[in-house]
Amino acid sequence: MLLSDAGSPAAVRPVGLGDFLADCAREVDVFLDGVLPPATGPTATLAGAMRHAVLGGGKRIRPALAMASAIAVGGRSHDALPVAGALEMVHTYSLIHDDLPCMDDDDLRRGQPTVHVRFGEAIAVLAGDALHTLAFDTIAGSDAPPEMRLECVKRLAVAAGPDGMVGGQVLDLEAETRTPDARGLEAIHRGKTGALISASVALGALAGGGTSWQADTLGGFGQELGLVFQIVDDLLDEEQTSARLGKSAGKDRAAGKATYPAIHGLEAARAEASRHAAMARSLLEAAGAGPGPPVNSTGVHLLRLLTDRILHRTA
Amino acid sequence: MLLSDAGSPAAVRPVGLGDFLADCAREVDVFLDGVLPPATGPTATLAGAMRHAVLGGGKRIRPALAMASAIAVGGRSHDALPVAGALEMVHTYSLIHDDLPCMDDDDLRRGQPTVHVRFGEAIAVLAGDALHTLAFDTIAGSDAPPEMRLECVKRLAVAAGPDGMVGGQVLDLEAETRTPDARGLEAIHRGKTGALISASVALGALAGGGTSWQADTLGGFGQELGLVFQIVDDLLDEEQTSARLGKSAGKDRAAGKATYPAIHGLEAARAEASRHAAMARSLLEAAGAGPGPPVNSTGVHLLRLLTDRILHRTA
Repeated sequence: MLLSDAGSPAAVRPVGLGDFLADCAREVDVFLDGVLPPATGPTATLAGAMRHAVLGGGKRIRPALAMASAIAVGGRSHDALPVAGALEMVHTYSLIHDDLPCMDDDDLRRGQPTVHVRFGEAIAVLAGDALHTLAFDTIAGSDAPPEMRLECVKRLAVAAGPDGMVGGQVLDLEAETRTPDARGLEAIHRGKTGALISASVALGALAGGGTSWQADTLGGFGQELGLVFQIVDDLLDEEQTSARLGKSAGKDRAAGKATYPAIHGLEAARAEASRHAAMARSLLEAAGAGPGPPVNSTGVHLLRLLTDRILHRTA
Repeated sequence: MLLSDAGSPAAVRPVGLGDFLADCAREVDVFLDGVLPPATGPTATLAGAMRHAVLGGGKRIRPALAMASAIAVGGRSHDALPVAGALEMVHTYSLIHDDLPCMDDDDLRRGQPTVHVRFGEAIAVLAGDALHTLAFDTIAGSDAPPEMRLECVKRLAVAAGPDGMVGGQVLDLEAETRTPDARGLEAIHRGKTGALISASVALGALAGGGTSWQADTLGGFGQELGLVFQIVDDLLDEEQTSARLGKSAGKDRAAGKATYPAIHGLEAARAEASRHAAMARSLLEAAGAGPGPPVNSTGVHLLRLLTDRILHRTA
């Protein structure tokens, strides 16, 4: 259990974001280690590939968002572990498939060889598929109330599906041959990145016992935060080295991909990130001021700190 | 609604399997057409690929098994439509990924160009992913009781995951370099084909209002039936032409793949199929004679006819 869980709805306790992120990462890693199949027996290669991809680093932003959101609606971060694990598995499956030679053809991810480089393409396709299935299995098999589990399965499926993450990836693919305008680029990133980040906040709220209204409002905050995340990602791809990012840098530009810096220029892209961060903060205030039950200010504070961290991150 | 739905638990009414299969296929196709995203708008290519794969033919064996199973436990075939649709989507996603160049590298499926041939590899990966997500969305979003929907999500995830279908595909891949014995081959097919066929019967039973005991027992019948299906598939690959099968024939042998005919010889493989069909029939009788509520003999009769059809199919 995290320190910040003990906060009463009214009190803002000082919480260090670094400690919170480290606690979240440790808890979700223990959880994932328990959920992933053991790398022994006849399908050891598959399990090894799944473990390599999931447990080989990663910032655990989505789990941290889900856990902070659970606290924000008055629940415990621990309640959000199954959804946090599921979100990280869906995110990881999408990275494995996205890195395939027929997609972005990336060799490096989280500072490690990508799954297809290490295990071959066929195993990479199947390891992604297995993580995708296991994510739904994990939510459906948790011990939360049935209606809540179902609501989380549904929202995760919508976020990951053709109207969300996969839809965004298709738009991104098509942008390689038909350069989108600013609006088209935003649509790509609302799907590709925003949908799952939004779902992280919404599912965390549901897992923490929040209402549908809270999940929707916090999910709206997550949509804006997802855009901040992606614009900063584009900026880092432009400005940083591969060693620092743990993945191949400068590839977007080399591939002639539409990015925020490419369309808006560096300065305007930075301003755009700040603008979406400000919208995210407003929606966060709205979640606290709306018709729902009172929010836990510690959790809201953590979400605000996460917004700043995502806006100002350097890797 | 199907003719056979009206049967009372005690009466065996004469039911033509051909009519039943045609009715199931028509109903599930209408259902799937309504669930799949429309092939318009910004992600039209993705939706087109999903529709090409799902609606471009197929025997609809899994939907028919689910619907017959729902009838067998005293429910209506119509109740099984969401699970039937989800099962067909999971089956189709697995075919799309299995046909990829890095997997079986097949150009022809259901008498049509495979998805990657028609739409490119990247869209094929993503169309498979989208169908995978949509399958869980469809079950979670149906109007069945929440506990039942959750149970179906869990059983489908287990059947499709590392201990089921995907695990079987990994064993199958590895069999290309390390020829399995008869027992190893059975493990491949229990995972690769058996798990989802078993889940079809089990989920149909749950959707029809059957007990967990009935779902388990009928699922056991489905496991044996899955082996029959796969052995016959191997035999057809050996004996038939591509035109008749609607997919590339003789590829298994050409690839040096372990198959039932390759390991046992043609005659012994046929005998093995008959032996598993007999075991399937016994388990079907057991489902009717067990401690659960009485079964509907029309539904059981349909499952028996489906067993015979799968054993004696020629395409």
